[in-house]
Amino acid sequence: MSATAAEHDAMRRAFALALEGPRGLNPQVGAVILSPAGDVLAEGWHRGAGTPHAEVDALSKLTPDAARGATAVVTLEPCNHTGRTGPCAVALLEAGITRVVYAVSDPGDASSGGAQRLRDAGVEVVAGEGLAEGEALLASWLDVQRLGRPHVTVKWAQSLDGRAAASDGTSQWITGPVARADVHRRRAEADAIVAGTGTVLADDPALTARREDGSLYDDQPRPVVVGTRAVPQDARLRQHPRPFMQDEGDDLPDLLDRLRELGAHRVFVEGGPTLASSFLRAGLVDEVLVYLAPTLLGGDKLAVGDLGIPTIAAQRRLDVRAIERLGDDLLVVATPKEAP
Amino acid sequence: MSATAAEHDAMRRAFALALEGPRGLNPQVGAVILSPAGDVLAEGWHRGAGTPHAEVDALSKLTPDAARGATAVVTLEPCNHTGRTGPCAVALLEAGITRVVYAVSDPGDASSGGAQRLRDAGVEVVAGEGLAEGEALLASWLDVQRLGRPHVTVKWAQSLDGRAAASDGTSQWITGPVARADVHRRRAEADAIVAGTGTVLADDPALTARREDGSLYDDQPRPVVVGTRAVPQDARLRQHPRPFMQDEGDDLPDLLDRLRELGAHRVFVEGGPTLASSFLRAGLVDEVLVYLAPTLLGGDKLAVGDLGIPTIAAQRRLDVRAIERLGDDLLVVATPKEAP
Repeated sequence: MSATAAEHDAMRRAFALALEGPRGLNPQVGAVILSPAGDVLAEGWHRGAGTPHAEVDALSKLTPDAARGATAVVTLEPCNHTGRTGPCAVALLEAGITRVVYAVSDPGDASSGGAQRLRDAGVEVVAGEGLAEGEALLASWLDVQRLGRPHVTVKWAQSLDGRAAASDGTSQWITGPVARADVHRRRAEADAIVAGTGTVLADDPALTARREDGSLYDDQPRPVVVGTRAVPQDARLRQHPRPFMQDEGDDLPDLLDRLRELGAHRVFVEGGPTLASSFLRAGLVDEVLVYLAPTLLGGDKLAVGDLGIPTIAAQRRLDVRAIERLGDDLLVVATPKEAP
Repeated sequence: MSATAAEHDAMRRAFALALEGPRGLNPQVGAVILSPAGDVLAEGWHRGAGTPHAEVDALSKLTPDAARGATAVVTLEPCNHTGRTGPCAVALLEAGITRVVYAVSDPGDASSGGAQRLRDAGVEVVAGEGLAEGEALLASWLDVQRLGRPHVTVKWAQSLDGRAAASDGTSQWITGPVARADVHRRRAEADAIVAGTGTVLADDPALTARREDGSLYDDQPRPVVVGTRAVPQDARLRQHPRPFMQDEGDDLPDLLDRLRELGAHRVFVEGGPTLASSFLRAGLVDEVLVYLAPTLLGGDKLAVGDLGIPTIAAQRRLDVRAIERLGDDLLVVATPKEAP
């Protein structure tokens, strides 16, 4: 069974509706209710955790019985889960929907099974219409579902010999302007940016994502400071358009859980060797970005500290995903190698 | 004034003759004596320090007066210097040569000026015939003249975070087979390979240049061990086709002088972080080869140790000459940035 032309068009519309909702803890979902003749009866989208799901939002715009015999076109498989709202599968059945077309299957353990429940009740179900576009739309949210936590990128800049600073701690600038612009562009794609108090006290970073002209990108990651030392009253961080959150850093999985609850899909860790090493040691890193400057520094200011690796067999192998030349510098993008 | 067709052909022949001589302290030089009609009267080449220069070797094959009015075609400017042999410029004049064609100017302070001396005596001199080929032939010898010492390449393999080994010292293998084959190929192009006693004792390297099938390249660099500890009787190094030389390492410029005297143009330093750091600290490095493996090790086994760099302004900037992907690894070829 495949989707009709009217359903295909309705799915395109549902993707656009999905983007009306916020990126966050819940997925962005859109829904369109079509009459048996293929006319649009109602539209809906999800406005974030605690508000009605897209299908229910759309149904709520119709009088009772208006959806009897109608088709629901939804970007994500209707849920089968009672949370802050009831199961959408049940809501669709109760409204008299007899056909459901959706793009992406629900990956959740608790929420999946909606399609089966509908089929069991005699509803026609078409899965996978617009799958690629749907997955692209939900990519970062799907990452969070797969990982069980936000996706973590750890970034550092280093000399060719692995130092983050000279012996006296000076480090501005090891990498050049092209590499720095690349960092800011990638920051803007993250939902949270994490720095250690050591870095905040030493470098006084703004933790904003800025264009080369100094202006702020429209999207600013939420700043997070890890460590117990106080952030000075005159820290540039306090000028950030979003208030910063401080965490002791003694339980990084818990910190990631809380960031997930706050809706963060992508976390950018870039504040210092201690923090980078902590995330690496804890195995909480999905991507590393190493900006390599063509310079030698020697000394003891290492970009990566101890990782608790006793012997070569325990090395943390990486898969190199990309190598880019950025001005004089080199960016290595790598992901932890999957265990064989 | 430019060379005739016969002189052009004679220069090609002189390049071939030059390669009959050994690469070493003295340059490889070939010479052809042409009659005024362009016929070859004699050929010669230089067989190494203490033996006649190429022009004199060629003239020695002629009876007195046979070279009167003839042309000498030489790959290098005739010398103006009395060393273990007399000045070639004088020998050419005394033989009655009236025209000299050469490729490369003599870069030596003591030996140059031969062309001027010949001109002053009324000889026609054509300089730069076959210049590019001549310079290519003499490239490594010209490097030695320019630097006043052999050209030094320092090679190391490291994890992305700058470690040469895991905490317990294990390091086989950080880099993969393609990178290791590249190292062996480059070793074979060197005249000497230098390793520290620490590396010899820890890793027992053969210090040979081997093909991937394990067979030896035809050219093997002379092995040199730096340090005061004794090389064990059963060290693989003692099976090297060339006997090793040991040096205390307290005076690296002096070591390089001695290697130069032994005819080394290119020295390959690859034996350990201590030695690499010593050469870098002393500013005796012309090229670095960094084999970067996509892995993280952490810990204290650094590929490069202290370089005596107190602050970022004193960093050792490099020019990246090439970046190569070698299997999973990355090779960065870089040279010290010239002082601005």
